[in-house]
Amino acid sequence: MSSAFSIDFEDMKFILFDQLDIVSDLSRIERYEDFDQELYETAIEEAIRVATELIHPHNAHADQVGCTLDSDGNVKTPPGYSAAWDVIAEGGWVNCAAPVDAGGAGLPHIPYMASTEIFISASMAFAMYPGLTAASARLIYHYGPDAWRIPLAEKLYTGVWAGTMCLTEAGAGSDVGENRARATEIEGEPGVYHLEGEKIFISGADQDLTDNIIHLVLARTPGSPPGTKGLGLFMVPKFLFDLDTHAIGERNDAFVVGLEEKMGIHGSATCTLALGANGTCRGWLIGGERDGIKLMFTMMNEARIGVGAQGVGVSAAAYNYALDYAKQRLQGSSVENFKDASAPRVAITAHPDVRRMLMSMKVHTETMRSMLYRLGHRSDLIEHGDGSFDHFRGQIDLLVPILKAHCTDMGFEVAVTGVQVLGGYGYIGEYHAEQYARDAKIASIYEGTNGIQALDLLGRKLRIKGGALLMEWIQDGMACCAAGRDAGFEAQAKAIEKAIQQAGASAMHLGGLSGSGKLEVALVQAYPFLQQMGTIQLALEAMHQAQVAKRCIAERSATPHLKGKLLNLDFYVSNVLPKATAYGKIVTSGDQSCLDEILFT
Amino acid sequence: MSSAFSIDFEDMKFILFDQLDIVSDLSRIERYEDFDQELYETAIEEAIRVATELIHPHNAHADQVGCTLDSDGNVKTPPGYSAAWDVIAEGGWVNCAAPVDAGGAGLPHIPYMASTEIFISASMAFAMYPGLTAASARLIYHYGPDAWRIPLAEKLYTGVWAGTMCLTEAGAGSDVGENRARATEIEGEPGVYHLEGEKIFISGADQDLTDNIIHLVLARTPGSPPGTKGLGLFMVPKFLFDLDTHAIGERNDAFVVGLEEKMGIHGSATCTLALGANGTCRGWLIGGERDGIKLMFTMMNEARIGVGAQGVGVSAAAYNYALDYAKQRLQGSSVENFKDASAPRVAITAHPDVRRMLMSMKVHTETMRSMLYRLGHRSDLIEHGDGSFDHFRGQIDLLVPILKAHCTDMGFEVAVTGVQVLGGYGYIGEYHAEQYARDAKIASIYEGTNGIQALDLLGRKLRIKGGALLMEWIQDGMACCAAGRDAGFEAQAKAIEKAIQQAGASAMHLGGLSGSGKLEVALVQAYPFLQQMGTIQLALEAMHQAQVAKRCIAERSATPHLKGKLLNLDFYVSNVLPKATAYGKIVTSGDQSCLDEILFT
Repeated sequence: MSSAFSIDFEDMKFILFDQLDIVSDLSRIERYEDFDQELYETAIEEAIRVATELIHPHNAHADQVGCTLDSDGNVKTPPGYSAAWDVIAEGGWVNCAAPVDAGGAGLPHIPYMASTEIFISASMAFAMYPGLTAASARLIYHYGPDAWRIPLAEKLYTGVWAGTMCLTEAGAGSDVGENRARATEIEGEPGVYHLEGEKIFISGADQDLTDNIIHLVLARTPGSPPGTKGLGLFMVPKFLFDLDTHAIGERNDAFVVGLEEKMGIHGSATCTLALGANGTCRGWLIGGERDGIKLMFTMMNEARIGVGAQGVGVSAAAYNYALDYAKQRLQGSSVENFKDASAPRVAITAHPDVRRMLMSMKVHTETMRSMLYRLGHRSDLIEHGDGSFDHFRGQIDLLVPILKAHCTDMGFEVAVTGVQVLGGYGYIGEYHAEQYARDAKIASIYEGTNGIQALDLLGRKLRIKGGALLMEWIQDGMACCAAGRDAGFEAQAKAIEKAIQQAGASAMHLGGLSGSGKLEVALVQAYPFLQQMGTIQLALEAMHQAQVAKRCIAERSATPHLKGKLLNLDFYVSNVLPKATAYGKIVTSGDQSCLDEILFT
Repeated sequence: MSSAFSIDFEDMKFILFDQLDIVSDLSRIERYEDFDQELYETAIEEAIRVATELIHPHNAHADQVGCTLDSDGNVKTPPGYSAAWDVIAEGGWVNCAAPVDAGGAGLPHIPYMASTEIFISASMAFAMYPGLTAASARLIYHYGPDAWRIPLAEKLYTGVWAGTMCLTEAGAGSDVGENRARATEIEGEPGVYHLEGEKIFISGADQDLTDNIIHLVLARTPGSPPGTKGLGLFMVPKFLFDLDTHAIGERNDAFVVGLEEKMGIHGSATCTLALGANGTCRGWLIGGERDGIKLMFTMMNEARIGVGAQGVGVSAAAYNYALDYAKQRLQGSSVENFKDASAPRVAITAHPDVRRMLMSMKVHTETMRSMLYRLGHRSDLIEHGDGSFDHFRGQIDLLVPILKAHCTDMGFEVAVTGVQVLGGYGYIGEYHAEQYARDAKIASIYEGTNGIQALDLLGRKLRIKGGALLMEWIQDGMACCAAGRDAGFEAQAKAIEKAIQQAGASAMHLGGLSGSGKLEVALVQAYPFLQQMGTIQLALEAMHQAQVAKRCIAERSATPHLKGKLLNLDFYVSNVLPKATAYGKIVTSGDQSCLDEILFT
């Protein structure tokens, strides 16, 4: 049994320092002006060490044993999780970009992006605990009442306590506005509410990693309007605590009453959380009583980039695992000797069909990583910069749903391809390939299903400023291709340009349908349109990387990694990009067969 | 929790009696000449009853508890399996087409095809036990020594005993020629051998369903040449038995020493079987000492059609399950009311993106079923007919690898789409959607991985008679389209004709590469070429079904099922067929980037 685990550090460095040139960008921001490449590399190397030595070794076993729930609502996480959490917490790895005044290291976002990918590769299930804690901390840091927002954020960022996000209720998943949990202000305690209701699918709603857990809960106050506009956001601790000293007091009435059996991410406790079922469940309002969704939405891009990172992280793990296996597995003879039963057996990397699969895994992993880091980095520049990076904002808004949906779809596809590379062993629990596939599947569902992302792209992002974001994307893409031509990638540029034009035509077509009362026909094609744009975006990433690699080869030397980027572009344009044209044909077909009323009744 | 289970009986009847007109075909065969539609319907209805009442109810629980192995090598199957097996055995459902002289009902193959799909839909894991028993019985019936072939086949066909297929060894999966298990003739007992070796991934190598198990084992005799040509096939019983009376005697030294944890099909015991590790393992030679692979190959089409049936069966189960859920699940408001938070909630079947997913599941399930039944039926006509159906033989040879690979790929894709339809609930074990996805995945791996199927298509089937089978497929496809034009499906016919021409061009291109010393470049595209042909073949199934449905509508009435066939054709041509063009572009790209020697070393 292979237990190989590796991280594409060389590829990360290529993206950060050669392709995105983050040091130059970040040096324009005062707080980062003295940070150099070595500092970033050191941080990432340490994350790799923690992931390799402390997180990954527990990943397979945790999948087998999962979490358990006792009759008092206490969740036990798999062996090794607690020790790994302590190291994560003490090393500042909940979020290495956490603000200094909240106990963080104050690094830029990009090493956090890398550490996120690294921890996900090591264990997607484990990485959810710090991931959700960081998200909770961020929300509290930005929007919590001044009296406690910074010290509480520090508790979370330093991993002393952990955080959860409590949105979903039974029958209110994609439709958050259906939330029924109630919050009633307690007489004589302004800002403090009694919560009642039941939340489902809450990751980490209980665990044995931290002394306390902070739940961020969406709930409806008396007299609020229906739908999302009537929701408030509440800070609901597992144990009540003194807001000044943080001394832990009595148990709050927020108890886990159920634990889900799932397809994957078994080490992540997916809980049903009952609020105020037997006593008083106290929650502190964040923002106004009807600000809940607005506040959540401010976190949305970051949360969805984080799920995109799950697609990339699992994809990378599955690729590296399958590649390691394929290099060692001898089977069959080479193509030229295939009729000779006595010919020496070769590693399966020699077989063209295995090479096709590995190359598809490689090119998707690397182009998705390129897209992820680009968006993560630019988000950071906007947040912390002086406004000179604000022109990136529109493209981030446009690309986030594509990143979330396409990179989780492709992450799953890469993981499934990994199963196929291993053949029979891929299906067996003793090997890890099938775990990657099972783990990866959740990412297309939560944080807005991929179908919801497609609606966001078509129904919101494409309508902003009358389609200006798409026009800008087309211009950026054409510019990338023009630079590609100059660098000698003539044929590849031509193919991508054509695909971009087709995407423009798709958008026009869908806009025309929406404008002529055929919104439903357009909505049928929302998802294929997202796939069309996603397929092209990854082609653009491959094109950009090839240009940078060519420059690096000229300046330094032709390493296999750099030459691999040129091959990536060729492979992607020939073997993947044609699918974008197919999506274009599908999107512009005008077909409305599936809307026929005789169906699905 | 929904536990809906249904079988598409209406669609089965449409294919058998309207589309394939099996009664007319089969009446030309003497043994079937008195069989009428009612007889076939009655048989299928009974299979549906058995599946619904006895098999399906255990499917989810069996997934949770799986099989267990005790220290003596005894496997325990999940609760309910033994009772279900007894009904299967007594009802003749191991194979209702089993020959009368071996205790069978002697029905044609087509009700067996239907019962196979039905049992797989009810429980893919359970259905493997009768499936492999039927395959073993068939091999013994046709090739076993006259002394015992018929009575032993009867033991299997009647489910008194069960059978297994023992090919794979560690490191010898796709490359069967690497088999190391040894068989040495026992002195003084002609035809009886001592077996030594270890077989892995043996489904049902032990169980608690039957009194005895017959293993069919590939092993190498002394002095045999390397590779597959040196392998013999041996009948190795779990318990030795008197070849005349079948009285069970002492335990043979064939013991299960390991049970695999797997991604899915947990109810099917996947065993490591040790032969002759501690004593004498007796096996009886079937055929000659070097006939093993030849005999196995005679079963190959049937075995691969059987795996194609797994793709179809799981696809149907996943589709019906997701559809039932979607009809009941209320979420969101209709498209026209989407801004009104107080608007009534609608079933998610009202949402265009959900309709797109359901339609994709429906059209794939129904076109795959059409292809499966067509091939199954024609195989039967060739086997039992008077030679007047022999012209079907070439197309079966050509299409079997496509059926096996494309229908298992699409079966998995349908099951994964089912997970997405259910959203968060799709990922949860309490619902069944994720089990269908996990179960389905194995079918792309065993019985020759889908990559091996692509090599079979490109390297063997396309070379038969200089490409004559492909030419015939093109002609048949064009004829189907011409008939479609006559029936008023002008635009759809045009699109499919174009796709067929592209497939012809792909084949020419790949043939040219092979002929000019670029075999490896061609082999990179073997799999996309199979996908191209598979995508077109299902379009042809949709086209044929639409024509038949239109005729039935004119003759009878426009039922939703029949109108659904017209919509299927529209949907497939607009939303799926464009992918065939993309595969064509990929196949003919000439790209060889993934073969570069710097990669994967």
